[in-house]
Amino acid sequence: MRTTIGIIGAGPAGLFLAHLLHRAGIASVILEARSREAVEQTIRAGMLEHWVVERMRAMGLGARLDAEAHFHGGITLQSGTERAHLDIAGLTGGKRVTIYAQHEVLKDLIAARLADGGEIRFDATVTRIEGIESDRPALHYGEGGVARRLDCDFVVAADGFHGPGRQAIPAAARREYSRRWPFGWLGILCHAPLSWPELIYASHADGFALLTTRSDSVQRLYLQCGPDDDVAAWPDARIWDALHRRLASPGWQLAEGAIFAKTVVPLRSFVCETMRHGRLFLAGDAAHIVPPTGAKGLNLAVADVVVLARALEAFLHHNRSDGIESYAARALERVWKVARFSWWMTAMLHRSPSEDAFDARIRAAELAHVMESRPAQAALAENYAGLPM
Amino acid sequence: MRTTIGIIGAGPAGLFLAHLLHRAGIASVILEARSREAVEQTIRAGMLEHWVVERMRAMGLGARLDAEAHFHGGITLQSGTERAHLDIAGLTGGKRVTIYAQHEVLKDLIAARLADGGEIRFDATVTRIEGIESDRPALHYGEGGVARRLDCDFVVAADGFHGPGRQAIPAAARREYSRRWPFGWLGILCHAPLSWPELIYASHADGFALLTTRSDSVQRLYLQCGPDDDVAAWPDARIWDALHRRLASPGWQLAEGAIFAKTVVPLRSFVCETMRHGRLFLAGDAAHIVPPTGAKGLNLAVADVVVLARALEAFLHHNRSDGIESYAARALERVWKVARFSWWMTAMLHRSPSEDAFDARIRAAELAHVMESRPAQAALAENYAGLPM
Repeated sequence: MRTTIGIIGAGPAGLFLAHLLHRAGIASVILEARSREAVEQTIRAGMLEHWVVERMRAMGLGARLDAEAHFHGGITLQSGTERAHLDIAGLTGGKRVTIYAQHEVLKDLIAARLADGGEIRFDATVTRIEGIESDRPALHYGEGGVARRLDCDFVVAADGFHGPGRQAIPAAARREYSRRWPFGWLGILCHAPLSWPELIYASHADGFALLTTRSDSVQRLYLQCGPDDDVAAWPDARIWDALHRRLASPGWQLAEGAIFAKTVVPLRSFVCETMRHGRLFLAGDAAHIVPPTGAKGLNLAVADVVVLARALEAFLHHNRSDGIESYAARALERVWKVARFSWWMTAMLHRSPSEDAFDARIRAAELAHVMESRPAQAALAENYAGLPM
Repeated sequence: MRTTIGIIGAGPAGLFLAHLLHRAGIASVILEARSREAVEQTIRAGMLEHWVVERMRAMGLGARLDAEAHFHGGITLQSGTERAHLDIAGLTGGKRVTIYAQHEVLKDLIAARLADGGEIRFDATVTRIEGIESDRPALHYGEGGVARRLDCDFVVAADGFHGPGRQAIPAAARREYSRRWPFGWLGILCHAPLSWPELIYASHADGFALLTTRSDSVQRLYLQCGPDDDVAAWPDARIWDALHRRLASPGWQLAEGAIFAKTVVPLRSFVCETMRHGRLFLAGDAAHIVPPTGAKGLNLAVADVVVLARALEAFLHHNRSDGIESYAARALERVWKVARFSWWMTAMLHRSPSEDAFDARIRAAELAHVMESRPAQAALAENYAGLPM
């Protein structure tokens, strides 16, 4: 098989890229190791930056989102039992927070891509990435037990943190920056009514908690836990007890409901420099991981491929290579901004097992500062709603 | 001897308090362990918050300051060789940064206090603080080899971090929060012309540097160094070499000059909760230390005694004890805000010997964020210029 852009991974980066390339008249094929069902059912984050929503609409991908998403004007920060509302829309000139689960975005992108005649090979595992230093790279992959090969002009590895894409860049040509945070998130989904109209980020002596939503009848809640906690250590009663305590606020009651999904994820920060080697580009989690505080992962992946699509179009249609050559630098500029924001939100809201009394007080003061200071709120809001593309 | 308010320490807190009490018709005596010359010549920080300057003027203490201080509209942040000007006045509705050395403030306060007939006993070392849980406290002190006693209604310990004041509060009644930073500041004074019209806070791979001024012909410069460095390890040539490197910026040259003072101070953050026990009040460094980044020490000391003077006046003139009872909570509210700001500025601008590559990049991203984002600059500016009193 032959195409112009060989894309590894049908996640947000790979799928958005395929759509952007299609609109520019550039052919691509996506190779995805998992099944379509697995891709469409894996529960991830659920918040879209303002410009991502606008771009989905402009690409004709916004119909279901507009019908089903929750649009929030702000968020609530909670310290102990005290709450402060941050008027994100008011602080950013009208940018709203869109709550729409990542797998719903993927369903929309996959359906539209297939409707456009796009090629997405599910259950297709890339085994080798060849010739990225030449102008004839190829992807070797297995599909139904058969070894196949995709020849292309460029390879985009949008294959996540554990995919083969990043490893295809020689170790000497990349530098990796990493932090494993000393805690994880226990996430649940439950059948319950909305307890609060917007998200609540709560910092409590016991640890962080986050209240968010999926629909009027399905709620998403998170709890700071140990990075290696087993979900078995968190029976429902323990989860509700912890959520009630950490989210407690006078005159307010958290609505319980049947828990039907429960996962633990460790928190990691990771950035790979560079994001290009020869004709291989990295995008999304293949190049960077942010902790989920602030829900930047999907948004940053889309930002990467917006830059990348422009670079590829300039090269293929106008014979200009400057976009390709500056892709890594341009993408990384935003990556470090978002890595910083996610680091800051994470550090401010979580109790670290190694923090001493001074650290804890300073952390509380940092949160109090944001809860009180309009400039500090505006600085949070411009990052939370999404930096301009 | 007998007075109403016995004050330990003729630093900013003690002297300001004596002036404020005098204006309220309340008698006080200051006992200061050092000589007047030592107090007036010890070089400390040199930046006054906006409201401190206004208050000095309102108290008739602003004449020399207005003639000799430098008034800056902003500051410059530098990352590597890149600079960004922060328009502090523009970001805060006109608040300027006043550069006027702490010992010049002390000279003005001492002279005015003595001119008012105020009592400041220099070379008077407090040896025992008695009866703070009664309504008849007393200060025992030695003066010229003679043991003396000052009876008073209230004791204010404005006697610095190492003074006896804080120790007079039973250990069980106070909680101390502390961080010793893993670096120090080497400070110099030199005879040189101004190299730049305002302060420059520079973050360099080698460490932090700060350019500030004392006058048109005397400059103050600081370098991050080891917390226990000996000044002997920093001959002039090494200092200039480091300053030239850390402050280097295209098309700009640091003016050298003869160095006539050289000191190393370790950086510490410290907060004592509570700040009152019975009839003993703590103020200034006796209760809290901030690292010098942002130069908040004097300003925070004055903020303490503004709250305290009001509380004492309410009690002594109007028989209301609520101000006294809430003094610690009210003062500590600002203390933690300022401790947070000083911690943040310090963490952002200094290379920590234990930081890894990820930490260093995030730190650079935090500084870049402030250098680019107007809301982030506004959040810095409102703290830098001084939170409202």
